[in-house]
Amino acid sequence: MYILVINAGSSSLKYQLFDMPSDKPLCSGLIERIGTDEAFIRHKILTTDPTQTIERKVTIADHTAGLQQMLFLLSDAEIGLIRSADEIQAVGHRVVHGGERFAGATLITPAVKEAIKDLFPLAPLHNPVNYKCIEIAEKTFPNARQIAVFDTAFHQTMPAYAFRYAIPEALYAEEGIRVYGFHGTSHKYVSEQASAWLGKPDAKLISLHLGNGCSITAVQAGKSIDTSMGFSPLAGLVMGTRSGDIDPAIIFHLISNGYSPDEVNDLLNKQSGMQGLTGLSDMRDIRKALEAGNRAAALALDIYAYRIRKYIGAYVAVLNGLDALLFTAGVGENDSAMREQICRSLDVLTIHLDSSKNSAHSSEIRDVSRAGAAVKILVIPTNEELEIAIQSFELLFPR
Amino acid sequence: MYILVINAGSSSLKYQLFDMPSDKPLCSGLIERIGTDEAFIRHKILTTDPTQTIERKVTIADHTAGLQQMLFLLSDAEIGLIRSADEIQAVGHRVVHGGERFAGATLITPAVKEAIKDLFPLAPLHNPVNYKCIEIAEKTFPNARQIAVFDTAFHQTMPAYAFRYAIPEALYAEEGIRVYGFHGTSHKYVSEQASAWLGKPDAKLISLHLGNGCSITAVQAGKSIDTSMGFSPLAGLVMGTRSGDIDPAIIFHLISNGYSPDEVNDLLNKQSGMQGLTGLSDMRDIRKALEAGNRAAALALDIYAYRIRKYIGAYVAVLNGLDALLFTAGVGENDSAMREQICRSLDVLTIHLDSSKNSAHSSEIRDVSRAGAAVKILVIPTNEELEIAIQSFELLFPR
Repeated sequence: MYILVINAGSSSLKYQLFDMPSDKPLCSGLIERIGTDEAFIRHKILTTDPTQTIERKVTIADHTAGLQQMLFLLSDAEIGLIRSADEIQAVGHRVVHGGERFAGATLITPAVKEAIKDLFPLAPLHNPVNYKCIEIAEKTFPNARQIAVFDTAFHQTMPAYAFRYAIPEALYAEEGIRVYGFHGTSHKYVSEQASAWLGKPDAKLISLHLGNGCSITAVQAGKSIDTSMGFSPLAGLVMGTRSGDIDPAIIFHLISNGYSPDEVNDLLNKQSGMQGLTGLSDMRDIRKALEAGNRAAALALDIYAYRIRKYIGAYVAVLNGLDALLFTAGVGENDSAMREQICRSLDVLTIHLDSSKNSAHSSEIRDVSRAGAAVKILVIPTNEELEIAIQSFELLFPR
Repeated sequence: MYILVINAGSSSLKYQLFDMPSDKPLCSGLIERIGTDEAFIRHKILTTDPTQTIERKVTIADHTAGLQQMLFLLSDAEIGLIRSADEIQAVGHRVVHGGERFAGATLITPAVKEAIKDLFPLAPLHNPVNYKCIEIAEKTFPNARQIAVFDTAFHQTMPAYAFRYAIPEALYAEEGIRVYGFHGTSHKYVSEQASAWLGKPDAKLISLHLGNGCSITAVQAGKSIDTSMGFSPLAGLVMGTRSGDIDPAIIFHLISNGYSPDEVNDLLNKQSGMQGLTGLSDMRDIRKALEAGNRAAALALDIYAYRIRKYIGAYVAVLNGLDALLFTAGVGENDSAMREQICRSLDVLTIHLDSSKNSAHSSEIRDVSRAGAAVKILVIPTNEELEIAIQSFELLFPR
């Protein structure tokens, strides 16, 4: 069956079509700058060899027009993979926030849509656009089952002592302020890949998703037991433009110095992290600056790695052991120097990286730990779209 | 020689008189509720057996009057230990914030006073009262050398990758926003006691100061390399009324829900931590609630211990080893059940507590780890006043 996966942002839309249960991707696409004069669609057909890429600058006023453009290309007489929208049997939607209500993929009903709406205050930048795309997809693909896969769902297994903050109880009970965690679809995907690779369903794993956003998750027997992002995606590790953990008193200090709360919010989300420390947010640019002798870049990389090393130690403690450390996403998969820096001098945790294995390239799952090491160090390409398709399929056809 | 130690709060004043270099405490005292109708002074003479306690309700309008009251008792014809203020050769002042300028005990000069004044914005509740007491002591004890011992000084050895936040570089360079850390006098004192006890000057130590405020410090070869409090004493562990670490986005969420920044600041500093989770801030009261079956108390204790366990793991990672875990201050020294909960299931870090040793009482330094364990678990009574006297003496008579 054909499952279409939709991952919508505020002005962008990614999609991928899968043939399930073969997990085969048929095409993928990206629509960017929706609502501007520079909108474009890039559509890749993956069934031909070599793959075929169509790129068009078109007027795309809104997400409705975006999904229409996608459907034109999917069902195009010449290059189309389907004849009509009716051939899409399921649409899997990435939805950022599922609150405490959704711990897994969920068939979208009117009640589920209401629940997604109720969560707008917790994810004001993401859930409204996810909701909108669900409504558009319902009209565009009226014969398809619509399924929501939440970024937060995987972390719903966290125990209360890990997800609660030490703030007045009413802020949790009445306003839902707790750790939710994000990147759940990616952490679930790579930790399942790792468990299968290890042949150990009860494995103790630490999963490092290092992209533009970064998070780290402790996984025990397939369940998330702790994660570094919190109530929002701002907490935890140092990211491209986000600060991660800071002393909350810094916010009050800046406000008393004349900043508005909105300015500080913007500062911590968009002008901090590697951007704030170096003026650059992309790790590849920072590596180039380092090679050119930029000292701010060297310090920023040290801060980035040091924060991760502390989280690894923290999670080894609460897991009381470790079978494998997993690296995924852009930086995790491709920045071998960062992997090396993170794993250096962690003998006490029996983490030993093999430099020559680590510097080799591959698009497959691979082990870069020293031969015979007790803790495996796995580099695993993440695939959130495939994970959404798998979860959608399994929801419709439980094993 | 006689060294007087002064530890001033906004409406209180603690003092202790030492005979140095014998480290012998001669008397100690506490003045509370300065400026209210309920002010009182409690003065303990430690040179008699049994010790003698004088408690008086007196009008104490301000810190000047407080120091005068102290001097009356110190030089009283009947119970006095000195004949006049001139016998006090040095006064050691606890000063909360020394910024980046002070990495050790410092003889107070007009320039040092200016520097302490310059740091008012970083410690608005503490440095002004410390400054005021220095000025009063200069007049009250005109023949004494005045010495400042800073709470932040011990942490000035932290490397930049540990003390910098991932925020715009200018906020550090121009506004001094970085990790300073606090409780330094206590962490220094207990880590030196531990090094001596172990006979290992290069020991890798984790020092847990658990009082009403709580912090944890990683110490390597006598130097602080990381600590949980940050720019302010709000960050890090769960405390009596302070939240410790939270997702900074919670602050913006509350402000957008109608709280003022000052209200959120107050909420996180005074209504959070154990107080926020249970309605009680004193660990002894929370233990009683637990025994009475209070579920909020059980969860709060779990959250408190879990946060500490994560920091222990993080610091073992960055120390890449551990010789001893140190417990100090009210909760650390006296709450054996909390020590047990913190150390449970940390086999991976070779931390093994001996329950029967742990439940024994003593006012001396003692090891509560299992016989033969690689990592010692030491309970060490802290003594910040003595540490201030020692540092003051060593500043005047370097070894």
